Amino acid sequence: MDLPDFKSLTDRQSPIYLQLYWRFRNAIATGKLAPGDRVPSIRSLASELNLARGTVEAAYQMLSSEGYLIGRGPAGTVVSPQLDGRVSATTPVGSSALPRSGQIKLAASKPLQLGLPALDAFPRKTWVRLAGRNLRAMNVADMVNADPNGYEPLRRAIAAYLAVSRGIACTPDQVFVTAGYRGALELIRRTLFRHGDSGWFEDPGYLHARRFLEDAGMQLVPLPVDDDGLNVESGLRHAVDTRFAVVTPTHQSPSGVALSLPRRLALLDWAQAQRAWIIEDDYDSEFRYDGRPLPPLKSLDHAGRVLYAGTFSKVLYPGLRLAYLVVPEHEIGKFRNSMAQLGRSPVLFQATVADFMEQGHFARHIKKMRSLYATRREYLVRALAQVFGDMLLVPERAGGIHVVAHLKPKYNDKAFAAAANAKGLAIMALSEWCIRRRSPVGLLMGFANIATPEQALKYVRRLREAFEH
Amino acid sequence: MDLPDFKSLTDRQSPIYLQLYWRFRNAIATGKLAPGDRVPSIRSLASELNLARGTVEAAYQMLSSEGYLIGRGPAGTVVSPQLDGRVSATTPVGSSALPRSGQIKLAASKPLQLGLPALDAFPRKTWVRLAGRNLRAMNVADMVNADPNGYEPLRRAIAAYLAVSRGIACTPDQVFVTAGYRGALELIRRTLFRHGDSGWFEDPGYLHARRFLEDAGMQLVPLPVDDDGLNVESGLRHAVDTRFAVVTPTHQSPSGVALSLPRRLALLDWAQAQRAWIIEDDYDSEFRYDGRPLPPLKSLDHAGRVLYAGTFSKVLYPGLRLAYLVVPEHEIGKFRNSMAQLGRSPVLFQATVADFMEQGHFARHIKKMRSLYATRREYLVRALAQVFGDMLLVPERAGGIHVVAHLKPKYNDKAFAAAANAKGLAIMALSEWCIRRRSPVGLLMGFANIATPEQALKYVRRLREAFEH
Repeated sequence: MDLPDFKSLTDRQSPIYLQLYWRFRNAIATGKLAPGDRVPSIRSLASELNLARGTVEAAYQMLSSEGYLIGRGPAGTVVSPQLDGRVSATTPVGSSALPRSGQIKLAASKPLQLGLPALDAFPRKTWVRLAGRNLRAMNVADMVNADPNGYEPLRRAIAAYLAVSRGIACTPDQVFVTAGYRGALELIRRTLFRHGDSGWFEDPGYLHARRFLEDAGMQLVPLPVDDDGLNVESGLRHAVDTRFAVVTPTHQSPSGVALSLPRRLALLDWAQAQRAWIIEDDYDSEFRYDGRPLPPLKSLDHAGRVLYAGTFSKVLYPGLRLAYLVVPEHEIGKFRNSMAQLGRSPVLFQATVADFMEQGHFARHIKKMRSLYATRREYLVRALAQVFGDMLLVPERAGGIHVVAHLKPKYNDKAFAAAANAKGLAIMALSEWCIRRRSPVGLLMGFANIATPEQALKYVRRLREAFEH
Repeated sequence: MDLPDFKSLTDRQSPIYLQLYWRFRNAIATGKLAPGDRVPSIRSLASELNLARGTVEAAYQMLSSEGYLIGRGPAGTVVSPQLDGRVSATTPVGSSALPRSGQIKLAASKPLQLGLPALDAFPRKTWVRLAGRNLRAMNVADMVNADPNGYEPLRRAIAAYLAVSRGIACTPDQVFVTAGYRGALELIRRTLFRHGDSGWFEDPGYLHARRFLEDAGMQLVPLPVDDDGLNVESGLRHAVDTRFAVVTPTHQSPSGVALSLPRRLALLDWAQAQRAWIIEDDYDSEFRYDGRPLPPLKSLDHAGRVLYAGTFSKVLYPGLRLAYLVVPEHEIGKFRNSMAQLGRSPVLFQATVADFMEQGHFARHIKKMRSLYATRREYLVRALAQVFGDMLLVPERAGGIHVVAHLKPKYNDKAFAAAANAKGLAIMALSEWCIRRRSPVGLLMGFANIATPEQALKYVRRLREAFEH
């Protein structure tokens, strides 16, 4: 047998077993190895090439599974006699630059990025321990992910948490675990809405929800936001006959104001009268630094018109992509039908979050973050005042993990945000979050990952440089 | 201080810390604990109740974070003097039955369930080892899940795998990692289609894809399937002007036939001429027992009209919910924009699959399953012949992980499937997978989890009993 030269496996970029696989395929294609030829045993080739046996085995198995090699028992392994000669010798596109996994580390978060919790303060050790335990306990039920509505212990833990922390009385059956807030919106859309249905939307309002809903064919009716939150009266006057309203009552996204109690009640009355749906996005109610929050709409929802969405992205981490939706009892059946059509989040993380909640780590972490975020917010607010003076106005807010810094109307916040992004700062323009109202201008900045006052100053000075150019 | 009785924490169903939390809230609500009252230290209460300190701490932290308790430094912890007396004493609905996570095990798979790989043969140990390593290596980038297109090493591993196993030349940039096949469909829909767009669909065809697309507002034009797969000529004749075609060319779902080469070429010609899109669902091409498969449409796609979808649900396990989509190079930008709007699968599993592929476990596992499934298919086919004789006709197929057992037209396969389901067998009726063609009748059964000939006989006898009633 005339074996080609395997000694120079120099293509360090792609896995050895794949290189070996291709050498064999090329050797077969070019006739260096003919049908019926015997190839070296795994053991002897591994020893000859100074490779791990597993590497050679992987290449051989790939070749066998593709029909190039065939086992002959004690007679060893041969090139398949059935090969028709039309074997392609092409190497795979892109494989020459194939790195081993783990070598590539994706870009981490950028300074001042919105929507991120403090990644440095996440209780990583506890999390890894709990997840590791769940991983090792993986069973057949987990592999099938049998409950489309969400892992039951997690739904129970969420119901208990909402009862104690938000005053929301619901059963675990009313809770659906979704792939992020967008998963919750998709679930609602599929279950309750038709293409072209219209609904109230805060203006300015959460950019990603707006894009998601518009992209899904929903018609959004922008309503202004003032110091009492969504202007419900405006909706009643101009667009009473819509199917839904999307609101962020605790800390309006992005302004941070709270929806006033009279407006909460007016909104609920409207929904009951119109048989409309209220989507309550309670995305960061956990983080509040002053005073006590108003009751969520869901806790006042006697008519069963509120769909309450919460997320673990802000309390744990966004890569987890776990959120939940609480639906009225009379809608459970419909939502279950939709869930059967939608994706399910891996059981491992659902079970880990359930443990994390039940063992008290969740409440403990929120409490720690509350005081940490109050501090970090202060770092940013002080740095902004020091560097920008009264060019930027930062209103006091009771909670949240970002600030809105208002600019005078003469400035172009989009151009400013673009310049800041070019300098590596992930801030956003307030006007981009607006639909058609005469846009207020300003900057949206996340502060959760600012570790020190010095860091805050550094980022804010860089922001100022972007501003000057 | 008049502390209520904490000694009888008898509600064994809910976590102790929650019970403790509620006892305190009730004590405060009923006035047993008044604003300003000092509560026992964590240490002393833990010792008094014979509980772990962490348990008491968790309850106290929840109470503090809710504003019921307030720390006074060396003076200890007191009931918050600001409490307004309107504290609700309601216990949370559903919490009385709150179990610890892990105690509930969801129903595993049912016998003969479609679409499941052999769960007993999954290399669980290797998987848990690799996932555990990735879990412990979790970093900030993983928490943010920075790459919306999918974890790069996984995209590279998929591109390399497709090159060697399916003859598909693509770069990692053309690969998008999605939340299951439905995630891939959603990605395609958002990127390329409008509400009401119409497309060819196999009849009978994959039920879940049909429901998903119809629910998303797509108009499906059913085309008959014969022994050469989708009847492309019928589409050209009756509905040439559609935007897309959804096909399962390797093993038509559910019939198992392969799309003939002339029809593959006709389909590609049509797509090029119409600038239509072909969605190639290659859901189980890994499992083939006889002969060599025809080249996938994607490998013949010189005009860039094919969207190739593969999944890890059948090779690894469905709870993983990982699939991928390969798009033409000129569409990468558009798909990236859509991915930014959609969910991202957790990095942990993406990284674990990447390792699994690169280290050769993937190819090895497929090879093992190929021979296992050929055996298990035989168990089922023999048992069906033995018990049903010529009442059921099971055509020979070259691959797949389910069989279609045809019934004579006089039978009602839906009633039969319902009766079998009532007996705990998860089979489906062939006619349910049909849109409007005169339905063939038959039964769809998964065989991957049939471990022995005896088990096959047991299930098939149960099936026969369902049939008799």
